[in-house]
Amino acid sequence: ADPRAVAEARAHQDRLTKPKGSLGALEEVAVRLAGAAGVCPPPMPEPAVLAIFAADHGVHARGVTPWPQEVTVQMVANFLAGGGVANAFAAQAGVSVTVVDIGVAADLPDAPALVKRKIGYGTADLSKGPAMTVDQAARAIEAGIEVARDLVAQGARCLITGDMGIANTTASAALVAAFTGADPGEVTGRGTGVDDATYERKVGVVREALRVNGVTRAGSEASDALRVLAAVGGFEHAAIAGYILGGAAARVPVILDGVIAGAAALAAAALDPAAVDHCLAGHRSAEPGHTVALTALGLHPLVDLELRLGEGTGGLLAHPLVCAAVRVMHEVATFDSAGVTEKPV
Amino acid sequence: ADPRAVAEARAHQDRLTKPKGSLGALEEVAVRLAGAAGVCPPPMPEPAVLAIFAADHGVHARGVTPWPQEVTVQMVANFLAGGGVANAFAAQAGVSVTVVDIGVAADLPDAPALVKRKIGYGTADLSKGPAMTVDQAARAIEAGIEVARDLVAQGARCLITGDMGIANTTASAALVAAFTGADPGEVTGRGTGVDDATYERKVGVVREALRVNGVTRAGSEASDALRVLAAVGGFEHAAIAGYILGGAAARVPVILDGVIAGAAALAAAALDPAAVDHCLAGHRSAEPGHTVALTALGLHPLVDLELRLGEGTGGLLAHPLVCAAVRVMHEVATFDSAGVTEKPV
Repeated sequence: ADPRAVAEARAHQDRLTKPKGSLGALEEVAVRLAGAAGVCPPPMPEPAVLAIFAADHGVHARGVTPWPQEVTVQMVANFLAGGGVANAFAAQAGVSVTVVDIGVAADLPDAPALVKRKIGYGTADLSKGPAMTVDQAARAIEAGIEVARDLVAQGARCLITGDMGIANTTASAALVAAFTGADPGEVTGRGTGVDDATYERKVGVVREALRVNGVTRAGSEASDALRVLAAVGGFEHAAIAGYILGGAAARVPVILDGVIAGAAALAAAALDPAAVDHCLAGHRSAEPGHTVALTALGLHPLVDLELRLGEGTGGLLAHPLVCAAVRVMHEVATFDSAGVTEKPV
Repeated sequence: ADPRAVAEARAHQDRLTKPKGSLGALEEVAVRLAGAAGVCPPPMPEPAVLAIFAADHGVHARGVTPWPQEVTVQMVANFLAGGGVANAFAAQAGVSVTVVDIGVAADLPDAPALVKRKIGYGTADLSKGPAMTVDQAARAIEAGIEVARDLVAQGARCLITGDMGIANTTASAALVAAFTGADPGEVTGRGTGVDDATYERKVGVVREALRVNGVTRAGSEASDALRVLAAVGGFEHAAIAGYILGGAAARVPVILDGVIAGAAALAAAALDPAAVDHCLAGHRSAEPGHTVALTALGLHPLVDLELRLGEGTGGLLAHPLVCAAVRVMHEVATFDSAGVTEKPV
């Protein structure tokens, strides 16, 4: 982050016609984005784009979720037809939606909003060995970087992360455990709805995945981060990590959605710690691993409404809040300009 | 609330292409608004209007805030010129802004966005006797009802509460204490920024106000609620209570801002308990009395970002979230219509 822009942003906040600090966490959002962009006020984060990275997971075979795998491809079709919750939230926020096939276990027909970057027909079962080869993970990251680069080239000034992948909270839990050192029991959640027996199995599968792949805790080297991401991640996690890196490289803010994005951001941060400066936590999901990830990333969620849907829905809800925080820096009068008496010190 | 619309809304939520309950608190928002409107899906809460009720307070003389009283009228001018944080947030959310002079201690020039309903040049000092006569309080309520009615007649389909009044968190604390029975020490906060000595004085003033006016705890009769509101409230509290009643009468949702709105909603609820069905808590402010008020009202805040500004800023931030919650009911595909496989029971 640019320390001069940060200092300028803080000083500007204090000149505006409001009590100092009275916008709470939103003041920090504006200051953070000024530091990331290297300019005060930071650019308005509009227009924004949601990229939903869709992929399947070999670990689905272990019964970690009651949802059939084909729901991934069905929901991709639903997004492309405009019928998902993410579509409704995006329409409300004036955000456009791109769906990226990064590894769905089916061939998809062409569609205007679909970007085809399939690395494979779903990952391998992470509880039996590496989910991806290191080469696959690297190619998924590269695809994410390119998606971000292309969207920014087309005019996007804010990137929102989205995901679709039945069983992807299992891979997320494994990634969060690997990158933070937390116990699988602490970071595994009930995803989009599993019963007690399935939950116990899911925790066991995460534990097994870490053991089988020889992952204790990811080291601080990029090569180790890539190995861990390949071993226990998903195609969408790798691609979202790349999308974050691509947004950061373009100095465009990235609003993270829930636990899948949080897990991907941990991988991105391991590859390039400075990338996190460009990230905002859109929301806190109901998944316990998400809170662990956010704490490790040092991010504070903007929305906290017990969502557990994914798709980018939490990131979309946060977008108007981020815009509001930045707009204050552009439009609000100062005590001087408005002739408002300042509080005596 | 209409039980049939509530049941229909819950059933519709469960048919949509998302795991049951996965939109967390936003599902409850949509269900609540269906019940309040008596129709499923509930109407989109657009266009929305923010009404900022501005007034001064005799208790300012007791030194409960470091801000000079003239800041109220200066900020009214700032809102009318479009320079306040509320203006920036409203512009972001596509919400129009109306300022109502319900009791500013100065004469205001005409302006297109200003509604003149002045009841007096500030209230009397609530720590010495009643802040308002019962007649003044009733007229302020009536003004609020009429503002709501007029805005709805002009097309508003969502009303957001706003306030401006230096020292109005002192009256809010007294109202919250009176309507909930909480101790003044529990519900008095630091407002827009007071030091320890001022804070102690402020708590003492609230305690004195309740004692001097013979208010222990407001009874359940409307006449007593009106007496308490007049004794320790402000013109803007009374007007906002009326604005809530007016919105409820028109079956239009009312998004409450912070502690001033929370205190006013307690008065509105005492006058007509069913009015609360039409209210949503936009946010939770940093003021301790606000949390006490929300608990008493049974409302869950949508935004929780440590704002302590007032003006309607917290309500404005919540508006896109409320729209998103309702839009889901109108636009998201069902499992049947989208051909998505439902989770086996």
